[in-house]
Amino acid sequence: MSLQTLKLRDGADRRLRGGHLWIYSNEVDTAVTPLKNFAAGEQVVVENNRGKALGIAYVNPNTLICGRIVSRDLKHVLDRSLLIHRLNIALSLREACFDAPCYRLVYGDSDGLSGLVIDRFMDIFVVQVSTAGMEAVLEDIVDALNKVFRPKAILLRNDGKMRDMEGLETYIEIVQGDLPDLCPLEENGVPLLAPLQKGQKTGWFYDHRENRAQMQKHVKGKRVLDLFSYVGGWGTQALAAGAEQVVCVDASHYALEVAGENARINGADDRFEGFHGDAFDICKTMISEKERFDVVVVDPPAFIAKKKDIRNGERAYARMNNFAMRLLNKGGVLVSASCSMHLEYSRLVDIIRTNSRELDRSAQIFHQGHQGADHPLHPAIPETDYLKAYFARILPAS
Amino acid sequence: MSLQTLKLRDGADRRLRGGHLWIYSNEVDTAVTPLKNFAAGEQVVVENNRGKALGIAYVNPNTLICGRIVSRDLKHVLDRSLLIHRLNIALSLREACFDAPCYRLVYGDSDGLSGLVIDRFMDIFVVQVSTAGMEAVLEDIVDALNKVFRPKAILLRNDGKMRDMEGLETYIEIVQGDLPDLCPLEENGVPLLAPLQKGQKTGWFYDHRENRAQMQKHVKGKRVLDLFSYVGGWGTQALAAGAEQVVCVDASHYALEVAGENARINGADDRFEGFHGDAFDICKTMISEKERFDVVVVDPPAFIAKKKDIRNGERAYARMNNFAMRLLNKGGVLVSASCSMHLEYSRLVDIIRTNSRELDRSAQIFHQGHQGADHPLHPAIPETDYLKAYFARILPAS
Repeated sequence: MSLQTLKLRDGADRRLRGGHLWIYSNEVDTAVTPLKNFAAGEQVVVENNRGKALGIAYVNPNTLICGRIVSRDLKHVLDRSLLIHRLNIALSLREACFDAPCYRLVYGDSDGLSGLVIDRFMDIFVVQVSTAGMEAVLEDIVDALNKVFRPKAILLRNDGKMRDMEGLETYIEIVQGDLPDLCPLEENGVPLLAPLQKGQKTGWFYDHRENRAQMQKHVKGKRVLDLFSYVGGWGTQALAAGAEQVVCVDASHYALEVAGENARINGADDRFEGFHGDAFDICKTMISEKERFDVVVVDPPAFIAKKKDIRNGERAYARMNNFAMRLLNKGGVLVSASCSMHLEYSRLVDIIRTNSRELDRSAQIFHQGHQGADHPLHPAIPETDYLKAYFARILPAS
Repeated sequence: MSLQTLKLRDGADRRLRGGHLWIYSNEVDTAVTPLKNFAAGEQVVVENNRGKALGIAYVNPNTLICGRIVSRDLKHVLDRSLLIHRLNIALSLREACFDAPCYRLVYGDSDGLSGLVIDRFMDIFVVQVSTAGMEAVLEDIVDALNKVFRPKAILLRNDGKMRDMEGLETYIEIVQGDLPDLCPLEENGVPLLAPLQKGQKTGWFYDHRENRAQMQKHVKGKRVLDLFSYVGGWGTQALAAGAEQVVCVDASHYALEVAGENARINGADDRFEGFHGDAFDICKTMISEKERFDVVVVDPPAFIAKKKDIRNGERAYARMNNFAMRLLNKGGVLVSASCSMHLEYSRLVDIIRTNSRELDRSAQIFHQGHQGADHPLHPAIPETDYLKAYFARILPAS
């Protein structure tokens, strides 16, 4: 197979040489290699302005990030064979870290597979492709999964937001096998169910695994509030760890129904309560009714999707953390999470600080949590680091 | 007891109102309340420029940080009674987080006791006082410990660097009971011994507890290198988790002797090896001899003690991480730690990135660790957040 060359401008190879995988469209020497010469998804040899080959990338002439390195070795294009190799490498990290085969198997750039996410639920695999370059090798991805895992079922959740920009249609499709409505998984030893087709993203958020394990240490015999609960990832694990009562709040009836089911399979439906509605509204009501909890988990959807949302987003985080603090008993534990890459660590600490002062409390942050080991950071790509979960004990001001 | 007033300049109360506990000498309205009117260690009422009382602080007229808030409630000076209260609050966090009574019981500002550190080893307590204000209530501290814990022994490790600035003598003294040369403790379920009198700081570094627990998941059947091992905190816990061999490197003969003893009490002295010398030199020799390990722990002393050391310090971290990476087998795990508050998180990530590129490897950071729950962050005092430990898998460049 002979690949076209994509030529970079003078100096534009610096970030790639530093380990990054992305090429921006303004870094291409379009006089020599016009982007319109490339098809979306096509693989190319990337050269710097002195003609040195840097690796193989796939290209999309229509996007700001117009190229993503798939291999630094010119012998290896992105094909079934390379995919099998990368899946095995990704698998070995997960097997070293987790007991049960339930995890994010492939986390895009960090696993050398930009544009691809694969979540594993025992022998069921959910694939999420977000770029034209990955879509072009979709059959190879399915083949590679079959070669390495012999899956019972493979679901394509190709309905992510990025696809539109990449010129890809959005669809959800079972490409292989049969899928139950609720798919079993295990996290921190707790059996759970996830709605792979009807749920958010791939159906489950494995990224908070370690934070949920941390939470489990603080809930025995306690009353726990799980805000933005979705299907009860936190709440169910609190129940399994002996929480006296768990209240899940979510805007989706269906998510709460699944959360109830998760409580049930853990023999804890008598300790579970679901509240449907907007978390802000429900918090306000609870505050006026003087409800109190020992542990409050704030794990909202990304309030800051883009840089321009930072100011409003930070306000929303601040408001929600304020509500959560007011719902805590003395000495209670606030778990304040954010999946917004644009919310800096220090800003979330500051949100905890200002609210505690405003409410005349003092806060001790005793744990700083991050995304789990199946969401590794790529050290050259700060965007791969997005999740934080601060655990704070909220005391009367001292 | 009637306290003198310390008056702040216009606007100088802002940080205190925001939750901070420190007063800098240039924030005092010295025209109204000259610092020379105060004795080192004296407690005062702090007022803003409009005469509003903000709380009680202890003062040292001779230091840059000339005051530290001990209470926002004017009814409570720092005395035996307040110390007992604060010890109980500190204790409840540790008891909620840890099984064994071995932890940092008091972590200065974060536990509302600026200038005081207390480490607990079962029923033996090591106290470290670093300010004149705390020294002034030393008897109350000992009394309060006796009231809350009935300790078998109390050791004062009052030999920290800050004392000189505070005009305090340095000394080590057993104020109560008898102390063994090596004091038993438990960390992550592993029995260990610490030299409380002859060792560094309080004798043991509890701050890495959670990072060592994380490391234990990756060492079974593996060859582990523990650089700057001190008494083998990491190494012994690797042995306890089934490491095939652990090599500890330290510049202190005595520390290595204790590390060997720690291996022995865990029935693992046949899998332990100690190398005495400079870690940089020993790494160079090992590299030239083509030694390889599956896990390398880099946990050096603070290479950056002050801001002015940042540049040289970062170079030292970079060099040591480079050596560590070269000593790793393919797919091996680098544990890269730093206790330098002045080394930013992103800089340590960048040190891992540049080294991996230089050596033609790729790094996946799969865990970001911090100081344990017995070293909580004070959200208004960034200095309370200092420890980091990145876990990276080092692969051939992809």
